[in-house]
Amino acid sequence: MSEKTAITPAGHATPPAAFSHGVRKGNILQVAGQVGFLPAVAGRPPAVAGPTLREQTLQTLENVRAVLEAGGAGWDDVMMLRVYLTDTGHFAEMNEIYDAYFAGQGLKAAPAARTTVYVGLPAGLLIEIDALAVLD
Amino acid sequence: MSEKTAITPAGHATPPAAFSHGVRKGNILQVAGQVGFLPAVAGRPPAVAGPTLREQTLQTLENVRAVLEAGGAGWDDVMMLRVYLTDTGHFAEMNEIYDAYFAGQGLKAAPAARTTVYVGLPAGLLIEIDALAVLD
Amino acid sequence: MSEKTAITPAGHATPPAAFSHGVRKGNILQVAGQVGFLPAVAGRPPAVAGPTLREQTLQTLENVRAVLEAGGAGWDDVMMLRVYLTDTGHFAEMNEIYDAYFAGQGLKAAPAARTTVYVGLPAGLLIEIDALAVLD
Repeated sequence: MSEKTAITPAGHATPPAAFSHGVRKGNILQVAGQVGFLPAVAGRPPAVAGPTLREQTLQTLENVRAVLEAGGAGWDDVMMLRVYLTDTGHFAEMNEIYDAYFAGQGLKAAPAARTTVYVGLPAGLLIEIDALAVLD
Repeated sequence: MSEKTAITPAGHATPPAAFSHGVRKGNILQVAGQVGFLPAVAGRPPAVAGPTLREQTLQTLENVRAVLEAGGAGWDDVMMLRVYLTDTGHFAEMNEIYDAYFAGQGLKAAPAARTTVYVGLPAGLLIEIDALAVLD
Repeated sequence: MSEKTAITPAGHATPPAAFSHGVRKGNILQVAGQVGFLPAVAGRPPAVAGPTLREQTLQTLENVRAVLEAGGAGWDDVMMLRVYLTDTGHFAEMNEIYDAYFAGQGLKAAPAARTTVYVGLPAGLLIEIDALAVLD
């Protein structure tokens, strides 16, 4: 088993506490909860991609992908996506955006499992997603 | 490490988005969030087992088990169950149902770890459960 | 792959249902959701470390650590910590406590990934944490 290593995509802001955006150990890769933050700009606080569920869902998925790729993985390696929404009324729209996004990702393996639950998130955030991947 | 494969129990409805009810890769099996839906009937929308916590908890556990078994696993392989309830007042009753259910499953290995938290779920649903299993 | 075994730290109360505080199978160790309960006293119900976020966060982290250590692991093996808070207003203070705690743990490997979401918890509890570890 190889050492546990932190995964820090180039565009990701420094986490707000002592955690890693992702970690990999052997063939297991865990992505921390990602939200719809745009690529970080030095000296500025994190900025959300926009106020809409669409903007935030797409940016969040891209942020998950960035961690996967920085760790040597991709969507085809993802076993589980945990989707946290703030409003049950967002489920259908999130699914539409989710399906369209993954239709464009050229998946070769089975889609990941998923759990969606409705929680509180910091003001302005509508979605958070984390991921567990198992590499070949 | 073998390929990631989707697990689709016979009685499960098609997921409402591009995710799998379960996936297995090598000896890791992830079950997506299951709720108290009865076995699917072609041409009809998903139907919940009933309005009570008891009906939904038992059906949800059976739905998790169906994914495990379709993936070549069973309760003894489960490392973690995540239980999502909607009401802290349901904890004691869910535990009673949970214990009685597992007492009847003939477990040989240690019971899985578990986390229970209280979230929002779509109208009419009182419980959701997902599972992570590690096979021999 | 070795057998799945239950992990039961000496100071932990018996779980309120048929689940394990932790389980280990091969090099995977899963810690169940821990809260701020003080070490159990025989014949008494579980007692929370105190009413403050600080007291509960530190006790919760110690309870996670106790499971890890009873399972032959430590913080350096942890891939993911799931932090459940009840109030978005607690995020900054929890991060301060979290950072100070881990600064004192002598970590050698990368810090774990983390997801923080805001849920309901039983009355009096402000935080719950679970963990997934991959051992060497």
